[in-house]
Amino acid sequence: MYQILDTINSPEDLKSLDDGQLQLLCREIRDYIIECCAHNPGHIGSSLGAVEIAVALHKVMDTPKDKIVWDVGHQAYAHKIITGRRKAFLHNREKGGLSGFTKMSESEYDNFGAGHASTSISAALGLAVADELKGIDACHVAVIGDGAMSGGLAFEGLNNAGIRKSNLLVILNDNRISIDVPAGALHRHLLHITSGANYNRIKENIWRTLGEGRFRAFLQALTRSTKKFLLHNSQTVSMFDSLGFRYFGPVDGNDLEQVIKMLTRLKSISGPKILHLVTVKGKGYKPAEENPTVWHAPGAFDPETGETIHTGGGPDRYQTVFGQTITELAEADSRIVGITPAMLRGSSLDIMKEKFPDRVFDVGIAEGHAVTFSAGLAAGGMLPYCNIYSTFMQRAYDNVVHDVALQNLKVVFCLDRAGLVGEDGATHQGVFDMAAFRSIPNLAIASPADEADLRNLLYSAADSSWPATIIRYPRGCGEGAQWRDRPFESIPFGKAVLLNDGAKVAILSIGPMAGKCAKVVEEARKRLGAEILHYDMRFLKPIDTEALDHACKVASTLITVEDGSTIGGLFGATSEYVAANAPGVHVIPVGVPDKFIEQASVKEQFSECEMGWENILEKVTEIFGI
Amino acid sequence: MYQILDTINSPEDLKSLDDGQLQLLCREIRDYIIECCAHNPGHIGSSLGAVEIAVALHKVMDTPKDKIVWDVGHQAYAHKIITGRRKAFLHNREKGGLSGFTKMSESEYDNFGAGHASTSISAALGLAVADELKGIDACHVAVIGDGAMSGGLAFEGLNNAGIRKSNLLVILNDNRISIDVPAGALHRHLLHITSGANYNRIKENIWRTLGEGRFRAFLQALTRSTKKFLLHNSQTVSMFDSLGFRYFGPVDGNDLEQVIKMLTRLKSISGPKILHLVTVKGKGYKPAEENPTVWHAPGAFDPETGETIHTGGGPDRYQTVFGQTITELAEADSRIVGITPAMLRGSSLDIMKEKFPDRVFDVGIAEGHAVTFSAGLAAGGMLPYCNIYSTFMQRAYDNVVHDVALQNLKVVFCLDRAGLVGEDGATHQGVFDMAAFRSIPNLAIASPADEADLRNLLYSAADSSWPATIIRYPRGCGEGAQWRDRPFESIPFGKAVLLNDGAKVAILSIGPMAGKCAKVVEEARKRLGAEILHYDMRFLKPIDTEALDHACKVASTLITVEDGSTIGGLFGATSEYVAANAPGVHVIPVGVPDKFIEQASVKEQFSECEMGWENILEKVTEIFGI
Repeated sequence: MYQILDTINSPEDLKSLDDGQLQLLCREIRDYIIECCAHNPGHIGSSLGAVEIAVALHKVMDTPKDKIVWDVGHQAYAHKIITGRRKAFLHNREKGGLSGFTKMSESEYDNFGAGHASTSISAALGLAVADELKGIDACHVAVIGDGAMSGGLAFEGLNNAGIRKSNLLVILNDNRISIDVPAGALHRHLLHITSGANYNRIKENIWRTLGEGRFRAFLQALTRSTKKFLLHNSQTVSMFDSLGFRYFGPVDGNDLEQVIKMLTRLKSISGPKILHLVTVKGKGYKPAEENPTVWHAPGAFDPETGETIHTGGGPDRYQTVFGQTITELAEADSRIVGITPAMLRGSSLDIMKEKFPDRVFDVGIAEGHAVTFSAGLAAGGMLPYCNIYSTFMQRAYDNVVHDVALQNLKVVFCLDRAGLVGEDGATHQGVFDMAAFRSIPNLAIASPADEADLRNLLYSAADSSWPATIIRYPRGCGEGAQWRDRPFESIPFGKAVLLNDGAKVAILSIGPMAGKCAKVVEEARKRLGAEILHYDMRFLKPIDTEALDHACKVASTLITVEDGSTIGGLFGATSEYVAANAPGVHVIPVGVPDKFIEQASVKEQFSECEMGWENILEKVTEIFGI
Repeated sequence: MYQILDTINSPEDLKSLDDGQLQLLCREIRDYIIECCAHNPGHIGSSLGAVEIAVALHKVMDTPKDKIVWDVGHQAYAHKIITGRRKAFLHNREKGGLSGFTKMSESEYDNFGAGHASTSISAALGLAVADELKGIDACHVAVIGDGAMSGGLAFEGLNNAGIRKSNLLVILNDNRISIDVPAGALHRHLLHITSGANYNRIKENIWRTLGEGRFRAFLQALTRSTKKFLLHNSQTVSMFDSLGFRYFGPVDGNDLEQVIKMLTRLKSISGPKILHLVTVKGKGYKPAEENPTVWHAPGAFDPETGETIHTGGGPDRYQTVFGQTITELAEADSRIVGITPAMLRGSSLDIMKEKFPDRVFDVGIAEGHAVTFSAGLAAGGMLPYCNIYSTFMQRAYDNVVHDVALQNLKVVFCLDRAGLVGEDGATHQGVFDMAAFRSIPNLAIASPADEADLRNLLYSAADSSWPATIIRYPRGCGEGAQWRDRPFESIPFGKAVLLNDGAKVAILSIGPMAGKCAKVVEEARKRLGAEILHYDMRFLKPIDTEALDHACKVASTLITVEDGSTIGGLFGATSEYVAANAPGVHVIPVGVPDKFIEQASVKEQFSECEMGWENILEKVTEIFGI
């Protein structure tokens, strides 16, 4: 079906292709990515933009001896397709299929894996130094987007690479759009470089200084030489030069010939260097080019029309509840501000941004800054709601501890995408937050059972006596609870909700797992004729000890049910309480076991972790000995 | 005793002083800092260097309405002394006294607290934006050292501040030495700016291009104008300009008159700006100026002679054991490399650096990079030992999860300063690591009971079947165990050590708490005639379930003893096991309670947390009902 692509089973097969064939290959890879992603959704935009980079790298470099680290592996679909995973790509992001990101265990060509941003320079430097120490002469390449470049870790990598002689090439894949419209001075600096404004300003200044005169012709020659110096030996042009990198570019990163030419040239230049490629996100697919933010990860679509296919119906998404509610709260309280690290649309904070543009801050991919900036806002008397995906909050752990909790500052952390996240897989699971933050003083941790609960928790966190609060909630559709235009209700911190009274067995659930547990209670009643106690704990911290006391009194077995690791979270908190205060009660954990959970649908992941209502019912049945 | 200083009770008292009086005040502050720190050790070097900055800021700015954020508050002694804490400074870093860092709860002049580095720009930006939103016209200043500027968070702050019009002044306190000799391209860049090398290179290039000739005189005029442009309108000179900051400097930061002049000028210039001050660490105290690394925090000393007072004797420090052992291991295994974020001497990795300069990497204050770089080295076939203080490892949480554990990479994390750390106080306690990392798959967590144990754990981690291992050990002197020149012994992962067999009560300790518990066992034998079971668990993960089974069999009460939070660590792991597998056994926690522990001596902190052997014995006595 594909003339060239079907013959490419490894990068070796690229080596003999001529320019025309390579061009055709790029077109075919694009078509194949669009075809696959249309029915099997993925990060299409970034990967379409990076097709030429992948092809050129494998053409010019001697991979896998030469090593490529793709920042946030989701730009690497072309790389995967030409490194022996063409057919496997049909099962991208599926259970048992390919990871949507680069992954070391998947291929020797994935020299380092990543699902989070900004790690590539540090990792590639590590690979480079390892080869140096082993006496291996090889090229080391980090391919990093302009969005990821705004993360502090990328700066730390540059700062450390810039003083070494390591043969490190950083390819800046500048598509002028990260996930959302990019913010930050670096972005402006890149625009500045590419528009040549900097050079032009110097030239104008010299011109102005001298005025019109007889030296014009001479000066034209002089400025030509200055330009040559500034651009080619460009010590003064870019931030990267300041950090010891030789800067090359900007070059059109979707012009295969140009990219191959530059890579061939740079391969023989030693030391740290940066190649600035300007690419088009979604390149080659018109709908994606025209609306790159939507097409970052658009879901399924019709490849002919570019219409995205909405699976439609269903309850509102938790994200919508968050976005609408914080906007309402902000209307009533001028202290409220919203902060997001590059997830304005993903979090639905764009709803508030629309209404209060000055009170919403998209800080770019910079989770640490998002939290410490929030702390500064709180210290200045504002009430920040800082929305970060659970998995990305791992990048701001110390900021939460040292800048917020330790200083008793009031920040409401909204941890989106908590729990199992499905197709994004192991790098993106939001399953460690409860265990990670439970030991931090001054920090309450709550999780809503449904949409109305989320709404009321967002409302109640503002007035609670706890300085900081984490509210964790999952990705996607809610439970169907009524929440719109309801009056706010105050939720008492640290109080569980008794959903069903009973005996012998008690289920303690947190978050939307309450729904599954209600089903268990219902089925136990039907099938076993048993009334099971069920608390929606609502708060992991402060945990409701009255509820625990009641449960320990009437039940000999507690089943804790959480959408997170069974180490250290609700099972941990419950076990600690029971072991210290009510020895004799048996506690059984339901949750994510002690391993990384790979890509699959959320349903499959629940099943893999034995977290379905059937699994819980089975445990109950066993206890009743039926 | 001090002519001017004794009259300064708030910054208001500075306003009326003339230049000569302010100069004298600076000298007196220096003398007072030296006098106080001689018997009451502190971070003397940084604070002596920043005296003029503090005095000038409070002279020029309208504090606390104008807001100053001191990065790593340990440079802020002068600031504390002139903001009403002169007498309190006599009790710097003491229990009930002043914190050694800035602290919001201590003074309205501490607009934001910090013990960790690189947070000031993000925090000051938050304060600035808060004032903007509230319509308050004020100046916002972040004072940050060149070492802290290498942290990624500082870059994220710059990147976000550079696109706003906020009236933010970043004072770069460039003393050319962070804690250890600084590394990194940024450091070189700063030297480059201050030496004017950048400008000189451009000039030389133009010169070379043209050759000697009749236009020389003319060109000299031209280059003068270029120089003027480049330096004064310096859009192309520094990295900071690239990020949207107006750059001013370099200026001698110990020249009070200059600093006051610059601040007065900058106060009326709006938008983000950076003032580059070159200061001398330890300024005004000769021994400290001559050896700034040692005098970062020298301990007690004789102010006359500058001789540091060694409290002397005692067992070797755990740091020495680490430094010597890793050097021995590196001799035998060429894969071993050592990584530290700016703690070369503090960790004793300098011992290995001396012998293997190419295999030890001080990456500057950049914990995230330290870990991801280690992951890259591991992916490249090396065996990295990454040494980070427990409290600073909080800054690399995601790097451990996403870059190391998730990828099954073998990195040995040596968590120095684990547990209660004494005088550095709440920001530096290493008490959350066990809880934070226990839920992460593929990651073993161990803690040695003594020096020999540390040595053998470092040895055994290399060959264990676990990909990554955390070895946590405390600051300072060991237990006196023989360890030098001993043959290495292989420690089986996940096996506890039975230190005493017994019944009814079992003590499960981890790390050097074993010594205190042995004392409890001994005293219980003497006073109660009771034989208590005592396991040194050694591994938090994998936890020794055979040991736990035995303990649960013979004892009805387990006492877990750990130098860390009683939430989620050893008490958590033990409770989870007991609640799920041996309900009926009572578990009692001994460890750090759920609050931040302020500065005091380690002994006082142990007493505050009821973690002394007497406290544990009391619990045992209660159980025996005597």
